[in-house]
Amino acid sequence: MRARVEAHFETVLAGFADTKVTQGMRYAVSGGKRIRAILVTEGARLHDVRLERAIWPACAIEALHAYSLVHDDLPCMDDDDLRRGQPTVHVKWDEGTAVLVGDALQALAFEMAAHPDGAETSEARAELALTLARAAGGQGMVLGQALDIAAETAQTPLTLDQIITLQQGKTGALIAWAATAGPRMARADVTPLQTYANALGLAFQVRDDIIDVIGDATSAGKAVGKDAGAGKATFVSHLGLEAAKARARALAEEASDALSPYGEDAGPLRDLAQFVVTRTT
Amino acid sequence: MRARVEAHFETVLAGFADTKVTQGMRYAVSGGKRIRAILVTEGARLHDVRLERAIWPACAIEALHAYSLVHDDLPCMDDDDLRRGQPTVHVKWDEGTAVLVGDALQALAFEMAAHPDGAETSEARAELALTLARAAGGQGMVLGQALDIAAETAQTPLTLDQIITLQQGKTGALIAWAATAGPRMARADVTPLQTYANALGLAFQVRDDIIDVIGDATSAGKAVGKDAGAGKATFVSHLGLEAAKARARALAEEASDALSPYGEDAGPLRDLAQFVVTRTT
Repeated sequence: MRARVEAHFETVLAGFADTKVTQGMRYAVSGGKRIRAILVTEGARLHDVRLERAIWPACAIEALHAYSLVHDDLPCMDDDDLRRGQPTVHVKWDEGTAVLVGDALQALAFEMAAHPDGAETSEARAELALTLARAAGGQGMVLGQALDIAAETAQTPLTLDQIITLQQGKTGALIAWAATAGPRMARADVTPLQTYANALGLAFQVRDDIIDVIGDATSAGKAVGKDAGAGKATFVSHLGLEAAKARARALAEEASDALSPYGEDAGPLRDLAQFVVTRTT
Repeated sequence: MRARVEAHFETVLAGFADTKVTQGMRYAVSGGKRIRAILVTEGARLHDVRLERAIWPACAIEALHAYSLVHDDLPCMDDDDLRRGQPTVHVKWDEGTAVLVGDALQALAFEMAAHPDGAETSEARAELALTLARAAGGQGMVLGQALDIAAETAQTPLTLDQIITLQQGKTGALIAWAATAGPRMARADVTPLQTYANALGLAFQVRDDIIDVIGDATSAGKAVGKDAGAGKATFVSHLGLEAAKARARALAEEASDALSPYGEDAGPLRDLAQFVVTRTT
């Protein structure tokens, strides 16, 4: 799947003028675990949507995710120099370019979500664009980021419920969009994959907090230990390391259970849930 | 139209959580000339699309435009403290908030373009989202901005043709989307309004360059004289002031002529073309 995603971005971006922004876009969408793309293509496969079509929303969500990382890494945001073991976009180029790279990647995400070679019906394409906008915007991902920033200057650390709300926006909304894109393309019921995604998204974030404690920067490919250093409330600070691990495992189980309507066909999505809570990067 | 646009944004944003980002979004979409919204609603009226529906793409393009201004004004971009006579978003709040406000406004633009209460058919909604993404992204508006940044560090000033290419991306693509949204909603021929918009977009930019030379900051509501101060190639630096004015007038005529299939009904769009080339802000 990784190679397929890379190849698709290559093809699409080959039509763009050769500017620093296009170079930065190509750089920002390369690499990564492609969890969101896999959610799209596996969800699509379960609904008999061909990969040639599913690759469009799969790359849409990867473009959206890549834009969020480029902007997150900016000096005025998290100020990170390293991402996936490589210099971040504003370090390799400059801040202005990084702003524009993120902006163009967000637009590209919507172009890919609404692309006529993606979902077969216009109903599905319009709905993919609409739901992606809601998941990405001021009531979804950006809301999560806004709450995250507000928490940094708050007098009291976040409660566990507040962390969950924050993470449902910051990572959960896009993960849910990815998992449900397949049934949306087929105009089928999204409920089982929505339930799967809700548990998976939370498991993903619990594991992220665990990696920040147990990981090392080399294998994580990014700075670690930042949360504890900043006195930030996380799943680990609330639950302790062992209980956080147990919680992540329970959430992965819950995610797998939601897939029962798909039987054995959902094996790869069950594997993905296991991967999410055991990964070290 | 201004009051209608303001009211629609109020209604939509009332559903958002009260964060600095939502406050910044509300601030960024208030005021302005609403030229793009008027293009949408007038184009829609010519194709018998009701205002209740047209207001959605009208606000979509205003949200997209507002996001581009918020990011343009950032210190790492144009570094402007003043916009429409008011402090820019990063001055009133902070840079991180301004990045997120722009990001959320871009997502909101796509939510509004694809909204089921907007265009009646899913074909039209999917096409509005797709064409907006193309107009906004790395082959449209962001490309224009990338070329603009590249020009600042280039050894030789831009030629007139290069300025035209840059402006077609930076402002022309969104103006064309706005003017053609009406026929797209009605699934009608976009050609007359596309031709109108191409001339109008160029006229708009020629006039912007004229305002930068003849305007004063108080009436313009933003810094003026920046282009000449920076030794930047503009329509005025190439043509001279009087020839630039003549060019703007000729483009406004050209725009008006393209409206002939609509007869007298297109009066407001003809007036808009005249306004664009006589405005002082």
